[in-house]
Amino acid sequence: MRAVSVNASVKYNVYISSGLIGRSGELSALVAQPCRAMLVSDERVYSLYGRAVEESYAAAGYSVDRFTFPPGEASKNLGVFGSLMNALADARYIRSDIIVALGGGVTGDLAGFAASAYTRGIRYIQIPTTLLAAVDSSVGGKTAVNLNAGKNLAGAFWQPSLVLCDTDILRDLPGDLLSDGAAEAVKYGVLRDEALFDTLAAGRLIDALDYVVETSVCIKRDLVNEDEFDTGARQLLNLGHTIGHAIESCSKYEISHGRAVAIGLYRIARAAEVLGINPPGLSARIRTALAACGLSTECGYTADELANAALSDKKRRGGMLTLIVPREIGRCELMEAPIENLRDWITAGEGAL
Amino acid sequence: MRAVSVNASVKYNVYISSGLIGRSGELSALVAQPCRAMLVSDERVYSLYGRAVEESYAAAGYSVDRFTFPPGEASKNLGVFGSLMNALADARYIRSDIIVALGGGVTGDLAGFAASAYTRGIRYIQIPTTLLAAVDSSVGGKTAVNLNAGKNLAGAFWQPSLVLCDTDILRDLPGDLLSDGAAEAVKYGVLRDEALFDTLAAGRLIDALDYVVETSVCIKRDLVNEDEFDTGARQLLNLGHTIGHAIESCSKYEISHGRAVAIGLYRIARAAEVLGINPPGLSARIRTALAACGLSTECGYTADELANAALSDKKRRGGMLTLIVPREIGRCELMEAPIENLRDWITAGEGAL
Repeated sequence: MRAVSVNASVKYNVYISSGLIGRSGELSALVAQPCRAMLVSDERVYSLYGRAVEESYAAAGYSVDRFTFPPGEASKNLGVFGSLMNALADARYIRSDIIVALGGGVTGDLAGFAASAYTRGIRYIQIPTTLLAAVDSSVGGKTAVNLNAGKNLAGAFWQPSLVLCDTDILRDLPGDLLSDGAAEAVKYGVLRDEALFDTLAAGRLIDALDYVVETSVCIKRDLVNEDEFDTGARQLLNLGHTIGHAIESCSKYEISHGRAVAIGLYRIARAAEVLGINPPGLSARIRTALAACGLSTECGYTADELANAALSDKKRRGGMLTLIVPREIGRCELMEAPIENLRDWITAGEGAL
Repeated sequence: MRAVSVNASVKYNVYISSGLIGRSGELSALVAQPCRAMLVSDERVYSLYGRAVEESYAAAGYSVDRFTFPPGEASKNLGVFGSLMNALADARYIRSDIIVALGGGVTGDLAGFAASAYTRGIRYIQIPTTLLAAVDSSVGGKTAVNLNAGKNLAGAFWQPSLVLCDTDILRDLPGDLLSDGAAEAVKYGVLRDEALFDTLAAGRLIDALDYVVETSVCIKRDLVNEDEFDTGARQLLNLGHTIGHAIESCSKYEISHGRAVAIGLYRIARAAEVLGINPPGLSARIRTALAACGLSTECGYTADELANAALSDKKRRGGMLTLIVPREIGRCELMEAPIENLRDWITAGEGAL
């Protein structure tokens, strides 16, 4: 079993292995002695893995309750958050009880925010069931729900007590969900690790799944440890996300997060070449790696459409923008630029090859 | 102007003086350079002091918005919390903007929780308009809203950036609201400060209001600094609250928090005498001081009614209970006792004099 130790304001471990949900109760008991455990999951994920988790926790001595909700991003709102808070209160959960979040990013973000707020904070355990959640949202302690005006606007920094990445579950994912998470893994490779990048470029995601998850989690851990409250180095994690968010927004979130980040990652690298910051070659290499993970770098939006979406988003942030620019595989730079320059970068990123 | 410096996870000052709301914008600018400021207040308090605060902030260069809600504890819920969160988001507030909480405990708790959650945390400034809020809820960083199942069940630890106690506002309070806050001030005297206690016992609350607020805030500050996340010494702040909460609950919150705490404070001291822990005298002294502040030590509930209410509440906490027992004016002790003993303490507390 691979283990990554995270030293945030709370110290916790991320375990990566096959067969983990069958041991989830036993492993949880190492960090939270048996108590009451509220299993939070969407209805689809619960139908696949819920019983196995409940049985494991019950066998380890926990008293298990269940809160399920309809699958999808639309459930990540204050209404479902309130229902979960009331479920905890009506069942008379106390500060020493726990939440177990079984699912993708929506479940982890929602359950984590509830954990942060219930009696001003109880512990929670993440069992990510998508590759994206395993390599991204399950580490770092950012929890939130969406408001009508935007995503993740209501939340807290709240660290899990344990993260269990069961690679059997990840291996069972449909191809498009695997690709969605692979985009973030490619991003970690471009940020800090050429060997990870090369593994993905060689089409070895499934073969080397434990390695890919472990290495991605380590990189995220290192960046988060440097900057738990998101004021500096953690911005590197936004590589590909400025244009990615614009693509998600243009598509009204029909294009998934990972697919949008993949396009954004390629285009920022391409723009750096067109603008003369990098010599040619890097963007093509990134495009090849993304293709090996089933990810396209084409999107149907014009540079103008993307720029308008990105600028509408970034107006929230003031006059300067931090761009994360790949310089070589394994090394990226933060570049401060006036927000108005973003349009040039987006236009340059569609430059002919 | 009196100033108390608080060193929690965030360092901030509590200023105590007459005329502070007229200087609120100017003083805020010392900790948060002019930005957007959402004034949060109930409709009654807004009608009294809202304009003066808005004008002061505008004069200091802030762009001021306003969120008001109906007065009363019933507004401290997830629905109003969500409305405030959406008001911030719809107005496109960003991480560097602020909330200004103008009001009593309901306003401070609600606005503080919203500040903790909006974009995972923005700064807020407290302008308490009740004596209870000035000496209690405005310091310590506990924010929350109520759920149907109980009070303060959804919240966060989130420190204000500044607290402004305008003693002109406090001096204008109706007598029953002054008494409500005075109960907590008497509690601080019993906990740590005989001079504060004697001032209150001499009926000098209004004469010495700045001193009473400053001294109370200092004592709370010291206890909170020792124990920001409420795992030990901060429990002393619950002096009088176990029975006080039972009284509030029995009265369906018709009896105010301060009045209930006053009775609880007296009864725990009386019980310690009846049970032979203290020699006689202390409870009578406490009763005299409370009476000087307009606070009765009588309640219409039997020991059985109170014990049932308290035990229903305390079942949430497990097998042992921590009682805070006054030993002399200025010194209290934490005593661990099995929850079942609580009934004996409550019964002893109604012992004849």
